[in-house]
Amino acid sequence: MNDINEESGQEHVEDSLRQVVEIIARQKLVESLVHKQDMPRHELVEALVHKQNIAELRKKLDELHPADVAYILEALPIEDRLMVWDLVKAERDGEILIEVSDAVRESLIAAMDNRELLAAAGSLDTDEIADLAPDLPKDVVQELMKSLDEQKRAQVESSLSYDEDSVGALMDYDFVTIRADVTIETTLRYLRMLGDLPTHTDKLFVVDNGKRLIGVLPIKRLLVHDPEAHIAAIMIDDPVAFHPSDSASDAAQAFERYDLVTAPILDPHDRLVGRLTVDVVLDYIRAEAQEDMLSMAGLREEEDLFSTVWRAAKNRWLWLAINLCTALIASRVVGAFEGSIEKLTALAALMPIVAGMGGNSGSQTLTLVVRGLALNLISKDNANRLMLKELSIALLNGLVWGGIMGVVTFGLYGNAALAMVMSAAMLLNLLVSSMAGYWAPRLIVRMGHDPAFGAHVLLTFITDSMGFFIFLGLATVVLL
Amino acid sequence: MNDINEESGQEHVEDSLRQVVEIIARQKLVESLVHKQDMPRHELVEALVHKQNIAELRKKLDELHPADVAYILEALPIEDRLMVWDLVKAERDGEILIEVSDAVRESLIAAMDNRELLAAAGSLDTDEIADLAPDLPKDVVQELMKSLDEQKRAQVESSLSYDEDSVGALMDYDFVTIRADVTIETTLRYLRMLGDLPTHTDKLFVVDNGKRLIGVLPIKRLLVHDPEAHIAAIMIDDPVAFHPSDSASDAAQAFERYDLVTAPILDPHDRLVGRLTVDVVLDYIRAEAQEDMLSMAGLREEEDLFSTVWRAAKNRWLWLAINLCTALIASRVVGAFEGSIEKLTALAALMPIVAGMGGNSGSQTLTLVVRGLALNLISKDNANRLMLKELSIALLNGLVWGGIMGVVTFGLYGNAALAMVMSAAMLLNLLVSSMAGYWAPRLIVRMGHDPAFGAHVLLTFITDSMGFFIFLGLATVVLL
Repeated sequence: MNDINEESGQEHVEDSLRQVVEIIARQKLVESLVHKQDMPRHELVEALVHKQNIAELRKKLDELHPADVAYILEALPIEDRLMVWDLVKAERDGEILIEVSDAVRESLIAAMDNRELLAAAGSLDTDEIADLAPDLPKDVVQELMKSLDEQKRAQVESSLSYDEDSVGALMDYDFVTIRADVTIETTLRYLRMLGDLPTHTDKLFVVDNGKRLIGVLPIKRLLVHDPEAHIAAIMIDDPVAFHPSDSASDAAQAFERYDLVTAPILDPHDRLVGRLTVDVVLDYIRAEAQEDMLSMAGLREEEDLFSTVWRAAKNRWLWLAINLCTALIASRVVGAFEGSIEKLTALAALMPIVAGMGGNSGSQTLTLVVRGLALNLISKDNANRLMLKELSIALLNGLVWGGIMGVVTFGLYGNAALAMVMSAAMLLNLLVSSMAGYWAPRLIVRMGHDPAFGAHVLLTFITDSMGFFIFLGLATVVLL
Repeated sequence: MNDINEESGQEHVEDSLRQVVEIIARQKLVESLVHKQDMPRHELVEALVHKQNIAELRKKLDELHPADVAYILEALPIEDRLMVWDLVKAERDGEILIEVSDAVRESLIAAMDNRELLAAAGSLDTDEIADLAPDLPKDVVQELMKSLDEQKRAQVESSLSYDEDSVGALMDYDFVTIRADVTIETTLRYLRMLGDLPTHTDKLFVVDNGKRLIGVLPIKRLLVHDPEAHIAAIMIDDPVAFHPSDSASDAAQAFERYDLVTAPILDPHDRLVGRLTVDVVLDYIRAEAQEDMLSMAGLREEEDLFSTVWRAAKNRWLWLAINLCTALIASRVVGAFEGSIEKLTALAALMPIVAGMGGNSGSQTLTLVVRGLALNLISKDNANRLMLKELSIALLNGLVWGGIMGVVTFGLYGNAALAMVMSAAMLLNLLVSSMAGYWAPRLIVRMGHDPAFGAHVLLTFITDSMGFFIFLGLATVVLL
């Protein structure tokens, strides 16, 4: 009985991964030994050991939670991953495909034939089928849709029709509805009759004759109130609810803010159409944060850690190409001042400092603005004040770091005029970069993208080009 | 009755913010008018309008959820924020302080006297008091601890004793325990007697005589099983459980993986000591993601959007100072080749491209490695393979982009040798930067920090210095 899972989930799953890796290594050793001495006598031994390893691995996988199998698949290099995938019971394929990341899912689906895919997808709920559908071959999706009854097909189609960043794309169709005019006792009898409740059910949805939501009943009220009480008297009649077209990111913030576990989703006529649950919101928040990080670093999408070199390169080329173009423009700015650099080569050594400090300080402003935009904290009422604050900080930073660099420059080159140009250029470029950090994400949002999308590339372009231009331009005017 | 909250939470709270801002603006207008014409007659009018605005604002605030008030406080510039804070009912101060970000919390606490702080903190649960305590003046904390009974004091002390990134720092003490040898009916009677259940209660914790956890009972099983059934027969006897010293980030991953709403927390002897809930995990995940983004951009901590310039500057100086040092070193590398640049000024224009492309491509590798480390996907079994993949991509990128830059360089300067140096330097620096992107976060983890902490500064240092050194060095050897 005393079988409490003593390890935190993470240790447990890491142990499993280690065991899987060990069995695979043993298996490979056997195979390589057999390949080396290709004798009939060994074949029998090999067959036996092989079977034993495979059986052990299969047993291990069967015991694991689908999410744990997904984690193991993600951590394995491609050929080991496909070997393990082959051993997973067919009826579990669907739930595991739902758990793995998009990039790894592609690698698994590529290794399955249409029949296997159809069987895997067939075991899923409609909201999960909609998650999977965009990654499946078209003929499999068609076949799959034909196999569903009318209501389910409508659900899948509806889920697929919403933008991937809307509440509609995240909702499920598993909820329990009750009427307001019954008692707790009747409700309890009804629930016992159902036999099971959907996962995460923390509240029942109270609807009227027209399927319109009129309130929600937290399960705990069912438990602590008098069985004779009527639902209407104990329900909450102004619950937080969403529409399928609402932004998923706003809904996630509402889940955080109001500590929700589930929330009803309504059509424009207040009719209940679905449910949003906290586990999906959690996944969404994690995915969104990762996407921001990836797009800041110039990766177009999530990348399988062990994807082929070719695939990975394609994922990275867009931003590298854009970066090459912007770097070339910055380089032409320097090129325009080659005459000045020839006369005073110290300029070449100092100019990267001006550009680099601008980039860094601009990136601090940019990150705060991206965060403020994501949390809806920036509005026209406070935007000017924020801009003024960032400009003031840039001024202060410019005086401090510009001053320090002036002293350092004088120390290195003994040239007072050069030192003053350095100080002035630092100050000016920090001011420019604070404005670039402030405006770049806002501009990108206005163009209809996520604020982090390409913001750093734009910022670096401005701070580099302007940094070179200001410093070399000032030097040319003042010194030469 | 039909009072469903039609707006998503976000629209609702943004509306409230707009209303608050409007009232404040109206109020300021009145005040400025009165200041301009300081006549006795107007004083009466002013007093009236003033009272009316303030009353309207106070009413609006009273209606809002504490989290919504927190959002409004965060979005307001300091003086407006403090004016609103003054109007919030004293008994709500505590729950609102818990909801605001650390930076904004400081600004609110600074405006309160000890008596107010004591009253605010006194209204909170012990885990919330522990959250707040580090931000309170020492004498307030002492006073507060004295006012608690022994059990609560022990809980606060225990919560404070854990590292902020451990499960112990996130746990609460609100849970319902039951015995295994009773029936569902008895349990239901017991719950009705309790009158209310803690928020997020999705399962009851089943304990033995020694307070040791022997299982959990999901509430939905209470609802759908026969009232005569015994708890022992329907409970789950191997639930996911954590220890207070477990890493909070691992626990958060377990919540995501197993779709948990709550989980029990046990001491080394399996005795139940606390509970972890999904709302806290959600906040933790969001905060962790933000911290990563901030520390990548060189901000030491979360910053109040409207903090004073001085505070903000202090938050940003550490990384700017480090960046100045690394930029100076890179500048000295260039300085060492001033002779070469004097002879061929094209080098000065081309060198930022080599450094910049290295920085960008290294940052792609770095981001994937940081993500892989955060998800525990990188182990000694697959690390070499991952390194090889990143090196291969760098090789491919080096050939492609180095080749393109070779052609561009020849086009610009008509110098074949320079074009070849450019290509070779690009290739070499991309190889160096992929290794820097791969090793920097792993090194930082080994030094006991979060992988994102300073990783970009280290990377930029390597890609800049090495980029300049490789390009200028090659040019000096080959061309001059």
